[in-house]
Amino acid sequence: MKSFKKVAIIGLGLIGGSLGQRIIKKIPDLKVIGIPRRSVTIRQAKEKKAIHYGTLDIKAGVRQADLIIIATPIDLIIPKFKQIVKELKKGAVVVDVASTKTNIVLEAEAMCPSGVFFVGGHPMAGLEKTGIEVADHKILEKATFVLTKTKNTSGKALNEMIHFVKKLGMKPLILKPAVHDFMVAAISHLPYLVAVSLAGTVEEMKEYRKQLGILMAGGFRDTTRVASSAPRWGKEVASTNREQIIEVLNLYQKKLQTIRRLIDHRKFREIERLFTAAKKYRDTLYK
Amino acid sequence: MKSFKKVAIIGLGLIGGSLGQRIIKKIPDLKVIGIPRRSVTIRQAKEKKAIHYGTLDIKAGVRQADLIIIATPIDLIIPKFKQIVKELKKGAVVVDVASTKTNIVLEAEAMCPSGVFFVGGHPMAGLEKTGIEVADHKILEKATFVLTKTKNTSGKALNEMIHFVKKLGMKPLILKPAVHDFMVAAISHLPYLVAVSLAGTVEEMKEYRKQLGILMAGGFRDTTRVASSAPRWGKEVASTNREQIIEVLNLYQKKLQTIRRLIDHRKFREIERLFTAAKKYRDTLYK
Repeated sequence: MKSFKKVAIIGLGLIGGSLGQRIIKKIPDLKVIGIPRRSVTIRQAKEKKAIHYGTLDIKAGVRQADLIIIATPIDLIIPKFKQIVKELKKGAVVVDVASTKTNIVLEAEAMCPSGVFFVGGHPMAGLEKTGIEVADHKILEKATFVLTKTKNTSGKALNEMIHFVKKLGMKPLILKPAVHDFMVAAISHLPYLVAVSLAGTVEEMKEYRKQLGILMAGGFRDTTRVASSAPRWGKEVASTNREQIIEVLNLYQKKLQTIRRLIDHRKFREIERLFTAAKKYRDTLYK
Repeated sequence: MKSFKKVAIIGLGLIGGSLGQRIIKKIPDLKVIGIPRRSVTIRQAKEKKAIHYGTLDIKAGVRQADLIIIATPIDLIIPKFKQIVKELKKGAVVVDVASTKTNIVLEAEAMCPSGVFFVGGHPMAGLEKTGIEVADHKILEKATFVLTKTKNTSGKALNEMIHFVKKLGMKPLILKPAVHDFMVAAISHLPYLVAVSLAGTVEEMKEYRKQLGILMAGGFRDTTRVASSAPRWGKEVASTNREQIIEVLNLYQKKLQTIRRLIDHRKFREIERLFTAAKKYRDTLYK
């Protein structure tokens, strides 16, 4: 199988920077070109060994690459792809890293000229901080890297991506875009909305603010951690995954309402059964 | 101020055991008597340096103590206090460690003979594991130890407890029982119910179970961590703090419904503002 020789990373934030660092660490013969928005980021990325060299000229930057990773915020992925699609060399593979896949994959596939291959991607890694400053290849260690497969996906390009992801010491997981989006609605977007609601609820208890701050133990800290994610990410996820989010919110709100009713009606034996089932399931997930 | 000479700890689970260990470490001249349910626990607690000696005879065990810590599950605190109240020596202080305070403090105060002083207590520390096996004084490091104050609370006993808590390297926080219960409903019981609902929601997506397990990143793990708490604790909290929990559930469900409506109506600018406010608040809590 062909291996990539030159990769261009558009967007050098937490994910783009961490991927660059990891490529240089794990695949030493692969050249990494960084294409950020600002020249200061090129300097920082070089210092962090996240790129070999950088340019602000996106078209020139992608021209020689046989792998292009678009690691911008969600709403810029398609605009960036539009900018570069005519510059790419034959056989180039383009992958993105957005948290939602259906719309992006649909639009990107429709734009692909013959000889350019788009594969939707989503490396599953942390989000509470952003920017090249916090980029770190370790956040990708053994992380899952979702790759999407549709009826238009090139089997060859997908295989090259699987090979690449494995070389990075990450775990490829092949999913249909819609299945991916439903699943992340449940395990990522819903927890985010829940954490935001929790933080918002406590914020409103202004009269107790100081004492609440003293009381908060590890439970509240962990349950609300993802509420510190980038609001822009949250907005884009809400807008691009709206229907799937509403669907899992339905399931969640029903579940919570059941618990509430059991407490309200003092059905404490039933509630202990429900708590036991939840603990049992949660304990199987993280052993 | 008088310092305690002999402390009896009734119940040697995670909290009782950790407190014992911490007392021996931080206040070497204080004798620690452990009173568990089973003799095997005495052996384990001694090995872990959580007690100096132990007994299964609760009445004999408390007789010489000037501080008695009742560290059993919530529903056993009042029954244990009933068993020992007539055995206690003049001036003895009794403190509990239950996660809810209003009912326990009310009942315990009503039972106190003259010369015995009850102070409600709640050391704020983790709960996902239970038992002497996981007891560790470090979980109490710099943790908040709530002490309750009512119109019946002895100022002298409360001061002795404050002094004791500080000696343990923990932070005393004096609260009225009802205020404590409302605040922990928000920062502990609500996050628990939310985590249970989240785990329950995902558990129901059985067709994706295997792939969901692969996809789950740190966000889901942290948001659901407290769902692994002891179901018995959850049940007792729900039953003894029912009204306060319903009250904070009201606030929370309203908040979540607001977010849902904004997503549903595609008000993405408003939603980004709301996400930004939540992040800002959360970021001030844990710097």
